[in-house]
This record gives sequence, C-alpha cells and structure tokens, in this order.
Amino acid sequence: MQFVSEADYSRILNAYRADFPLGASLEPALRACLVDLLGNPGSLVRAQLALRSGESGEGIELRSCSVGIAVEYFHLASLLLDDLPSMDNAALRRKMPCVHLTYGEATATLASLALLNRAYAMLYEAIEDLPGAARAEARKLIEECLGVGGIVGGQAWDLALTGSGAGPQDYIKVALGKTASLFQLVLVLPALLTGASRRELHQLRRFALLSGLLYQIVDDLKDLYATPQQSGKTARDLELERPNLLLQLSATDAMSRFERFQRIALKIVAALEQRNSRWSFLGELTGEMRRRAAALVERVNTLEAAA
Amino acid sequence: MQFVSEADYSRILNAYRADFPLGASLEPALRACLVDLLGNPGSLVRAQLALRSGESGEGIELRSCSVGIAVEYFHLASLLLDDLPSMDNAALRRKMPCVHLTYGEATATLASLALLNRAYAMLYEAIEDLPGAARAEARKLIEECLGVGGIVGGQAWDLALTGSGAGPQDYIKVALGKTASLFQLVLVLPALLTGASRRELHQLRRFALLSGLLYQIVDDLKDLYATPQQSGKTARDLELERPNLLLQLSATDAMSRFERFQRIALKIVAALEQRNSRWSFLGELTGEMRRRAAALVERVNTLEAAA
Repeated sequence: MQFVSEADYSRILNAYRADFPLGASLEPALRACLVDLLGNPGSLVRAQLALRSGESGEGIELRSCSVGIAVEYFHLASLLLDDLPSMDNAALRRKMPCVHLTYGEATATLASLALLNRAYAMLYEAIEDLPGAARAEARKLIEECLGVGGIVGGQAWDLALTGSGAGPQDYIKVALGKTASLFQLVLVLPALLTGASRRELHQLRRFALLSGLLYQIVDDLKDLYATPQQSGKTARDLELERPNLLLQLSATDAMSRFERFQRIALKIVAALEQRNSRWSFLGELTGEMRRRAAALVERVNTLEAAA
Repeated sequence: MQFVSEADYSRILNAYRADFPLGASLEPALRACLVDLLGNPGSLVRAQLALRSGESGEGIELRSCSVGIAVEYFHLASLLLDDLPSMDNAALRRKMPCVHLTYGEATATLASLALLNRAYAMLYEAIEDLPGAARAEARKLIEECLGVGGIVGGQAWDLALTGSGAGPQDYIKVALGKTASLFQLVLVLPALLTGASRRELHQLRRFALLSGLLYQIVDDLKDLYATPQQSGKTARDLELERPNLLLQLSATDAMSRFERFQRIALKIVAALEQRNSRWSFLGELTGEMRRRAAALVERVNTLEAAA
C-alpha cells in the first residue's frame, strides 16, 4: 500500500533506518538482529499514514514522520513478541524466518524492548511542545493505545479467546485493541500536532476504530486463504483456534460486513473532507483495503468452486 | 533496606498499588497476574531513593514519587522477562513462584509490556514541565538507561558472556547496564526536577554508576551464597555460567573490591554533602550495601571453615 509520493516514501525509509542509532558498545548478536530488522521494514503503511495525517501543519512533517516511525517500531516489537513460541509459535514473518528462530528467543525479546524504548522516546518527544491540554490528550492517547486498554489488552484477549467460542463482540474487542490502536496513533497524533479541531479529532478517532475493524477483516481473510508466500507470514488462526471472523462467517458474509463498516467510514471521510480536502487519503485507505479483501474473497470463491 | 520514614514508605506503597489502574475490560488472566504482582512489591528501594533524591524541591515530591514508582514498574518488568525460560529459566522470585509458572509465558510477557507502558508514561509525564535544556537532558537519560545503552544492553551482555570467559571489564559492563541504569534514573531524574546544579548532577551520575557496581557485588554474592529462602529468588549464575565476580575472585578479594569502590563513592558523597546536607542518605545507602556484603562474606568464610 502506498499513500505517499516516491520522495516521501524514500524519506520514511531513510528515517526508519536512521532513527534507531546502534551504539558502538552493543552486544554483537543483538546488533546483528536489529540490523536485520531495520533492513526489512515491511510496508511502512503506518508511517505513511502518519505523514499524510500531519501534512497540513507548518513544520509538523518532521514530528509526524517521527510519530509514524515510532509506531512502526512499536508494531515491529509487537510482531516479534507475538511470533514467540509462547504466543503464536510462528516461523515466517515479512518473508523471512522469524527472529527467534535465527537469533533465539532471548535476543528477540531484547530486540523488541530496544525498539519499544526508542518508540516511546520518539512519541513522547514528538508531543512535548504541544500546549498543555493537547499534550495531556496526546499522552493519554499514547498510553491507552499501547497498554492494557489497547494493543496489550487486545493481544491478551486474542490469546484467551478460542475461535469456536468467540462471539461477534469478541472479534471487535480484539480488532479494536490489536489493530485499531496503532491506527489511532498514526491518524490522531499528527492531527493533534497540526492543531486539528475537536470535531476533526473526534471524527478521526471514529475513523481509526473503523479502519482497525476493516484491516482485521482483511487480515482474517489473509490468515485463512492467502498462502504464506503471498502473506509473508505463518498462518495461525485455524491451527491455534484464534478468533477469526472467517471461522464463523462465509467469505461473502464477511465481505458484506466489510462493506457495512466501509460505508460508515466513508461517511466520516466525507464529513472530514468538507472541512479540509486533505483528508481524502482516508478514502483511498479504505479503497485499498477493499481491493485486498475482494481479491481474497474471489480466491475463496474460486477455491470453493473447484472443490 | 529502608531509607524513608514510615509515613513516606506507606505513601510509596500506596502509590505502587494505585498508580497502575486496571481497566474494567481487562482480560481476566492478565488482570489476575497484575493484581498478584502489585500485591508483592519487593523492597521498593528504588522508589525510596527517588523520594529522597527529590526531597528538597518545593512540590517536587509527587513527581519524584512518580519517577520512583515508574522505575519500580520497569524493574519488575525486567525481572519477569529475565526469569523466562529463554533467559534465566527461574522458578522463584520475591519468594513466590515466577509469574510464567503461574500464568504462562505469554501472560508474563504481556504483563511486563503493560508495566513498561505505564512506566514510560509516568517518566515522560514527570519531566514534561522542565525547562527545555533540562528536559532534553532528562529525556536522553531515560532513553539511555532503559535501552541498548542501559538495561537492555546490559542484559544482552549478561546472556552473551559466560562466567569462565568473562574478564573484569565484562563484569563492569554488565553491572553498569543492568544495575546502575536504574540507580541513575532514581537518583538523577528527581535531582533534575529539584533544579540541582550541573556539578551536583555530574557527581550524582558518578555516584549512581558506583552504586550499581556495589549493588552488583552484593547480588553476585547473594546468587552464589544466599539460600533461595534468604534471597527469595532462584540462583542462576553457577548453573548458567553467567558473569559472576565470585567465580573469579575469592569472597575476601571481592570484599576488597567493594571497599575500594565504596571509598570512591563516599568521597563523592562528602563533596555533595558540602553543598547540601540532604545528600547524606547516599552514604547510608553504601553503608547498608556494605552490611549485606559483609554478612554474606562472613557466611562464605564460615562455610569454608566448616568444609
């Protein structure tokens, strides 16, 4: 998914590599592991969204980029930990063997802590010049999204619920915690930095929640129906009985659900665009997710027709 | 170790429990795990030191207490992760079965992330009203102490070095990373909040490094010569061949080394006390560590005489 110009993409990619300084005295295995990780950045979609969300502010680009890179580091740290044997016991991630298989679980854990430490420093530095009330709101958002009310809580529910026992509300709980939280950070924090209005911020928060739900439907389809070569990671929901919408709904019904959420999301985008045309990229985001969902649903239907 | 009044100790204990809010929607196993952890706080020595270090500042107590509790949460998170099978594979911590044995590795990992998230929020909030240059210094200190230049890097070296191959500089590298880093935070950050002079801050940083080395000698003695009942945790250095000073030096030589470091530390304390008598508690800290080291050395000598 690309939502920024080639020049901005290069800028994000350079920042992703340069924003994590590796000190001279770093233990060699941890250093090698971090070098590998920084060399395989994934789609950087979160950083791209952060840059777009902060783009109208004078001189805000640098801090928005910083927020985006920080969230990418946080996301990567969460992938390293999710892939551990005690969680998903995965083998493949971003088309490479998982870090714990190459460097061992201890180094994977320490690498994730190093990434988190850098991410928190960058996030809190990015908001420190905001005026008092906005800064307090930003701080609250960071803590909520990255803690038990967000990604940590979402992962706990994901592990606790089994696919067969999970109800519709459970999918939403997991998706809001695990997936929507990081969308919140990359969409709302840069907007806070640009001095967006209360109304815009409220709508962005709602949009971010919906985009988390949409993304999770794509991810659930991918987990069950994409090959590891296509997804670049180990499928796990079926084997581990993790909550996956497609274990309860047909692909067609999941797509209807996607389209229902997307309609609500697009209404929010329309309201945001009336205030400022720069928010049109949010419509592109839902469109891109829809194309991915539709391609996977088509694959399911082809597979089923052949069976 | 108690370095504060009974009233201040109660205050720290209450803050330790109250500063970690458990939201209503928390997944039950993660909640139970966090409730257990908050109910078994350990010595809270780091929080006590933070309170003492910030005590001369008008209205600084609250933020110093916050720094202290945050470092306690960080310390606890690091213990949970260090105890995992992939690192020390420990069974006992703070006189209780390790969290991963009671709740599983995944919940132990998520609990540590929840603690870290709260700790970072508290640390960065505590420093956010400092003037620009002091805030930048505080931010740099936090990031260094908690990342690859501090506790994460120290743990990486601790795992990478084996006891037999480690030289004297290696012990220092591990102790500075793993142990001195958190002393830095609890001694220097509250002093920064009270507007301590550059000279005082410089001396505090040196003192914190030395106190990390002193504490590590006590910990190395404890690992080899205290029973699990006395230490409340699983001994590991001998079995796992981790760097431990006592694998290379006799107890008497380790004690000489302790006393050499202590003399340097006490010179720094004397210089600090000339400026302000409130720093005398740092002398008490080294005295208390010396009593512990001496008691363990006496135990070693008794054991050796009996053998």
